[in-house]
Amino acid sequence: MTLERLKAIRLVLLDVDGVLTAGEIIYGDSGEQFKVFDVKDGVGIRMLKAAGIQVGIITGRSGQALRHRCANLGIDLVFDGTRDKTKVLDQVLAHTGLSAEAAAFVGDDLPDLAVMKKVGLAVAVADAHEAVRGVAHLITRAGGGRGAVREVSDAILKAQGRWDELVQKLFHG
Amino acid sequence: MTLERLKAIRLVLLDVDGVLTAGEIIYGDSGEQFKVFDVKDGVGIRMLKAAGIQVGIITGRSGQALRHRCANLGIDLVFDGTRDKTKVLDQVLAHTGLSAEAAAFVGDDLPDLAVMKKVGLAVAVADAHEAVRGVAHLITRAGGGRGAVREVSDAILKAQGRWDELVQKLFHG
Amino acid sequence: MTLERLKAIRLVLLDVDGVLTAGEIIYGDSGEQFKVFDVKDGVGIRMLKAAGIQVGIITGRSGQALRHRCANLGIDLVFDGTRDKTKVLDQVLAHTGLSAEAAAFVGDDLPDLAVMKKVGLAVAVADAHEAVRGVAHLITRAGGGRGAVREVSDAILKAQGRWDELVQKLFHG
Amino acid sequence: MTLERLKAIRLVLLDVDGVLTAGEIIYGDSGEQFKVFDVKDGVGIRMLKAAGIQVGIITGRSGQALRHRCANLGIDLVFDGTRDKTKVLDQVLAHTGLSAEAAAFVGDDLPDLAVMKKVGLAVAVADAHEAVRGVAHLITRAGGGRGAVREVSDAILKAQGRWDELVQKLFHG
Repeated sequence: MTLERLKAIRLVLLDVDGVLTAGEIIYGDSGEQFKVFDVKDGVGIRMLKAAGIQVGIITGRSGQALRHRCANLGIDLVFDGTRDKTKVLDQVLAHTGLSAEAAAFVGDDLPDLAVMKKVGLAVAVADAHEAVRGVAHLITRAGGGRGAVREVSDAILKAQGRWDELVQKLFHG
Repeated sequence: MTLERLKAIRLVLLDVDGVLTAGEIIYGDSGEQFKVFDVKDGVGIRMLKAAGIQVGIITGRSGQALRHRCANLGIDLVFDGTRDKTKVLDQVLAHTGLSAEAAAFVGDDLPDLAVMKKVGLAVAVADAHEAVRGVAHLITRAGGGRGAVREVSDAILKAQGRWDELVQKLFHG
Repeated sequence: MTLERLKAIRLVLLDVDGVLTAGEIIYGDSGEQFKVFDVKDGVGIRMLKAAGIQVGIITGRSGQALRHRCANLGIDLVFDGTRDKTKVLDQVLAHTGLSAEAAAFVGDDLPDLAVMKKVGLAVAVADAHEAVRGVAHLITRAGGGRGAVREVSDAILKAQGRWDELVQKLFHG
Repeated sequence: MTLERLKAIRLVLLDVDGVLTAGEIIYGDSGEQFKVFDVKDGVGIRMLKAAGIQVGIITGRSGQALRHRCANLGIDLVFDGTRDKTKVLDQVLAHTGLSAEAAAFVGDDLPDLAVMKKVGLAVAVADAHEAVRGVAHLITRAGGGRGAVREVSDAILKAQGRWDELVQKLFHG
């Protein structure tokens, strides 16, 4: 059951293009690349970390724009330029001492398929490729770069009974 | 009643990411950040100021892109990099000599919750987090960065019976 | 009747923000501004010019990004930073020797109201302010920056019986 | 029949603006141009190439941003700044030794009409000009820059019975 999977999560791993962004690959004439992230996803990542849930990035592409966003959000676990995401998953699990059941992965396309079959909670964004949606335990209502990661964060924290307390603590809400 | 709240407004305070923008956090490889504002919101802010209603910015993030837009719009009350928006609200009210009932705040996410509970008119943009929509007196039809602030400006100026006169004066319309 | 108005057009005047763009006002930290135009609008402008219909720009804002796009499209009549668009209309009509009936204006917001009341064909883009849609002879199906100007170009050229010939001549279509 | 056309394809030729992008023509004040591509299209292009199907670009505009994306995707056949796309088609067919029946072209606007009438499989993106949709053998569900090229890639590879094998080989999916 999805609720049980959400309760077990101690580590959230995220693809970048199409998940933390809407999939835009932006080049200037100079060769500089740009990435468009979502502010609400950032709040969700901060809430996960405040709850003691680790957040990491596993992406096939690499680039400085992502590094700047990760620094801004305080994400240390950044694995970019990776061909084999399952290999990175194994490394992260070994490094953190967590089981695959405690890990969630949010993906959108075929390079995410293999790793999604290994984690405790496989999440596809709303506009993921149909083959990716087919293996997901959870499909977000929001598309990539449009709040999908925030939706996952809210779902995990509410399933774990932490959401209200965190809103109060972080935002005096 | 919302109409009474609109009539009382002398100060409009705005969040930035997700309100004056659609929530895009844009980084280049160089670390430069970019912000995407809406031209119709700018007309609304100019109309508010022409009507003698003050406009200010309260945002948790900081950056030069915002500063350039504020300079372009003639907004002096810019409070960025603030963790505690209610504290800034108190300072602005003290500075302007206005009561909380005369202040509106337009927000979209949890960092706006506390300040929205304090002002006379709490506005949530259409795509605000559900917890924020839950405390709002008014929810715009437009999303953040897509004319939400203009909608608030039009609503205030029409409620105060100033809209037709301002169109005539500013645009000979 | 709109068809008669379309037939009479010899000059198409365009607002920029919200018409040739979707209204995004984009700033970088450095203060540089960026504009997002639509490729299909460019084809429409080229077709108008190939048909001997003049194309001009009248906008309240100014900036080099617009100048680069106008140079790319071969538009000479560029009036930016103008407060009073009707005054510019009068100058353009005097300069070209055309009557107001031969001029179209495509607009989206209150600064366009006065000039739209003076031209032979007033066009509002789909997402124009309601007050602007109220004075328009024609409202496009497409929004600003999403093909609205192309729609106007196609409508004028088809009304004037030139469209098929131009497609053949320009694109061997 | 479209399925037979899909089976015959050995070469996929792509327009850029409105096909590999959503048609945004982006200028900075400095004159630098920017292009926004789609990450899922990139996966589709990589899959086509892995299946031995050649991929090329034929576009009327030119610029370095496109060149950077093509280098990133390993596309060698890049013909930009071309007025006459049918002439380039003839050159590419001569160079590759393929017949027109083995070539697909994905387009969105009038400059693509003539070449689309010559190839074995003419594809229009969902938001192509109606005249272009009128000559297409296939119209994608996705718009340009929003996965249209990926959709074509998936359709070709599935028609040729290669898709499952490629997912397994490339993504261990």
